[in-house]
Amino acid sequence: MKKVDLLVIGGSAGGLLSATMVRKAYGEDLEITLIRETERVMVPCGIPYIYGTLRDLGKNVIPDALLTGANINLLIDRAVAIDREQKTVTTKGNEVIGYKKLIIATGSLPLIPTFIPGHDLDNIYPVMKNEEHLGKILRGLEQARDVAVIGGGFIGVEFAEQISRLEKNVTIVEAADSCLWQAFDKSYSDDIESRLRDKGITIMTGTRVKRIKGEQAVEALELEDGSSIPADMVILGLGVKPNSALARDCGLLVSDRGAVVVDQYMRTSDPDIFAVGDCAEKRCFFTGKNVPLLLASTAATEAKIAGSNAFHLRLIRANKGTISTFSAKIAGKTYAAAGLTETQARREGFCIMVGEFKTMDRHPATLPGAQEIYIKLIFSRCSGIILGAQISGGDSVGEMINILSLAIQKDTTATELNTFQAATHPLVSPSPIAYPINAAAMNALATNCKHLNEDLVI
Amino acid sequence: MKKVDLLVIGGSAGGLLSATMVRKAYGEDLEITLIRETERVMVPCGIPYIYGTLRDLGKNVIPDALLTGANINLLIDRAVAIDREQKTVTTKGNEVIGYKKLIIATGSLPLIPTFIPGHDLDNIYPVMKNEEHLGKILRGLEQARDVAVIGGGFIGVEFAEQISRLEKNVTIVEAADSCLWQAFDKSYSDDIESRLRDKGITIMTGTRVKRIKGEQAVEALELEDGSSIPADMVILGLGVKPNSALARDCGLLVSDRGAVVVDQYMRTSDPDIFAVGDCAEKRCFFTGKNVPLLLASTAATEAKIAGSNAFHLRLIRANKGTISTFSAKIAGKTYAAAGLTETQARREGFCIMVGEFKTMDRHPATLPGAQEIYIKLIFSRCSGIILGAQISGGDSVGEMINILSLAIQKDTTATELNTFQAATHPLVSPSPIAYPINAAAMNALATNCKHLNEDLVI
Repeated sequence: MKKVDLLVIGGSAGGLLSATMVRKAYGEDLEITLIRETERVMVPCGIPYIYGTLRDLGKNVIPDALLTGANINLLIDRAVAIDREQKTVTTKGNEVIGYKKLIIATGSLPLIPTFIPGHDLDNIYPVMKNEEHLGKILRGLEQARDVAVIGGGFIGVEFAEQISRLEKNVTIVEAADSCLWQAFDKSYSDDIESRLRDKGITIMTGTRVKRIKGEQAVEALELEDGSSIPADMVILGLGVKPNSALARDCGLLVSDRGAVVVDQYMRTSDPDIFAVGDCAEKRCFFTGKNVPLLLASTAATEAKIAGSNAFHLRLIRANKGTISTFSAKIAGKTYAAAGLTETQARREGFCIMVGEFKTMDRHPATLPGAQEIYIKLIFSRCSGIILGAQISGGDSVGEMINILSLAIQKDTTATELNTFQAATHPLVSPSPIAYPINAAAMNALATNCKHLNEDLVI
Repeated sequence: MKKVDLLVIGGSAGGLLSATMVRKAYGEDLEITLIRETERVMVPCGIPYIYGTLRDLGKNVIPDALLTGANINLLIDRAVAIDREQKTVTTKGNEVIGYKKLIIATGSLPLIPTFIPGHDLDNIYPVMKNEEHLGKILRGLEQARDVAVIGGGFIGVEFAEQISRLEKNVTIVEAADSCLWQAFDKSYSDDIESRLRDKGITIMTGTRVKRIKGEQAVEALELEDGSSIPADMVILGLGVKPNSALARDCGLLVSDRGAVVVDQYMRTSDPDIFAVGDCAEKRCFFTGKNVPLLLASTAATEAKIAGSNAFHLRLIRANKGTISTFSAKIAGKTYAAAGLTETQARREGFCIMVGEFKTMDRHPATLPGAQEIYIKLIFSRCSGIILGAQISGGDSVGEMINILSLAIQKDTTATELNTFQAATHPLVSPSPIAYPINAAAMNALATNCKHLNEDLVI
């Protein structure tokens, strides 16, 4: 039996980065093996862009150089059982590999709406991440004319936008009142929906699919409001659930949502086994509550924590919970969010103050390519600490949101963000006198100053 | 005599933002007047782009709507004296205005190399910020063929790059070994210089101008190394000095560098007078030392502090010093820096650890428009706290640097940046598994881990 120092199960963001982090943190002497099921691994966030922009599965592959460059053994196989007593993993190919430490990064599986009659007709595709399945969607799209997307989250919206470029009739059906309601307040969702409609996409919100109709293959969706949508292809974008069967089967603690329970060091209930990424339990940064927010960026953070802590605890209380930070370029405009929306913050019971600001992302605004930025910041009114941010604008919004991601992770206050020193340059950023983060923080504070001034004499 | 609650002298970033901040912080009842010398105010950072990209002074104006929208009285005049006893300001137009609080934002003046023989020949232009003077440069360029730029800082490099678009012969003369050596380590400066050379610009570093030759107008520069450069026009980019005469003349304390001395609340030695921006003393965030770093973004921060604190101290110990954060797009590529360079950190005596990383700014890298990002992070080895960052790449670098600007201002450590949760999206950012800030922090830590592992058994 082969025995390695570290065994990793899973080859996407979480598994890959766990393995390379262990190599960086613990040096060249360790033997590290990573098991994954497929010859090639798709870039998870790139999947929607296979269909409109890339048009080629081979252009959406995570390079194996990241593994081979770190001297990590790669085994293409499927892990089928973990023996915690013997500290071994058995594969479908009948290999048995011993480990000192094991990291489970088995990811997630798409939710299938088994409660909808007709969900198992032909030409209905969940979004699984393996190349073979994604190739079927690519080929399926060649025949399709009317594509319905069930679910208006990021996957649904991104697939819809990409498929609309192929001159198909595309309809999104979302049960909530807005697309992307988990990430954005209504002013942003409305803008996104309006841009998608401008691209010819039909959006139906506040209604559910009652039945999927068809003989062998899907022909139409029947909605709860009684209307019917023709569809010869359906994409399911209803979210994902942790893929935790392997962990549960070997007796590791699993939450009621099906996620592997982990501590702040990413250790499972077995101290020699870690779990990271979509298969692992997620806690909310703001409340400590269990949340079902599965993101590649969260997986990357967790992988680094697990990798650093695999043999000794080096990152102390490192997993402070997910702040939920997103960005997306939709129909040519970038939208991003970090932390709580105003709706979420109020629902949790925070007393808040909100600052908004609009400006141009070049200065002077007469420079070529200038686009409007719209920012909204949400703070705790009592402590001044930032709770959430939303921004829309040009491409630079993709990094501007990460200033706020860090601000949230460092408990930054509105006064600190008001006077935060930022680099600016005419050709790449807004003006220093109207830098959006400063200005929105200032606007949030101004609401409080009014109150302060009542007691003061100037 | 007219008397106002707040009087502001100076209409650029510092003055404008001080006035609007007071309005936001203290409400609608105050009477606020701003005095400035010119009908229109140029966007300071936009000045170089007048010459190649905008070709029109009118396109580089700070809109007065910012003032009028905040109900601030505007007086076009020149303040000539401050009477601290009477609390009045007298103008060239013989107005006398009383104030409760006064904010001085008189900016800076370009350094003139009076030690160089011939510095006063015709067609030699310092970079002053007023429209009339900048118009002379615009008209002067129409006649010029060989333009020499003395000084390879941001102003010099940006003017050179813009003027080179007009099919002129452009030469930069920089006394130090590299252009932009105050902001970047050599690997970045070399890259910038190479791109400028590709645009046809001649760069001469490590040499000084000994004499400027010509009859009435400039004809050539004679360098210390004996060589000679033909020049029918010269741009002086040698830096600026605080414009503090008005403050000094009324007896306010002024530093040996000529800057108005201020405390952490931006108060001068007179508690009813504040100073902000280029005319005010700057301290280094890392050492508390007096530094000559004059930036519009620093002015903006100081203006917000002065404005908030004008009538009551509201932002406590708010001016923590300048972190020096810059960005610039040069010949199509963006370069940015925050905090100390490696050279500066070593010279100050910090024990440091450095992490570098290169990756593409889209994921997968096959997406259209992907550009390489090169990042370098400098940390204190003992405390792990970030001291500096440099990044080059596409436009998004302009905001990515501000994540590090905030990290510096919040004393963030390498382990925190290694596991920092960042939003990423295929079309606007690098991959979550290779997010440059995370990865460079990880590489810095890896150098320390090797040392740690020597004592440990795995």
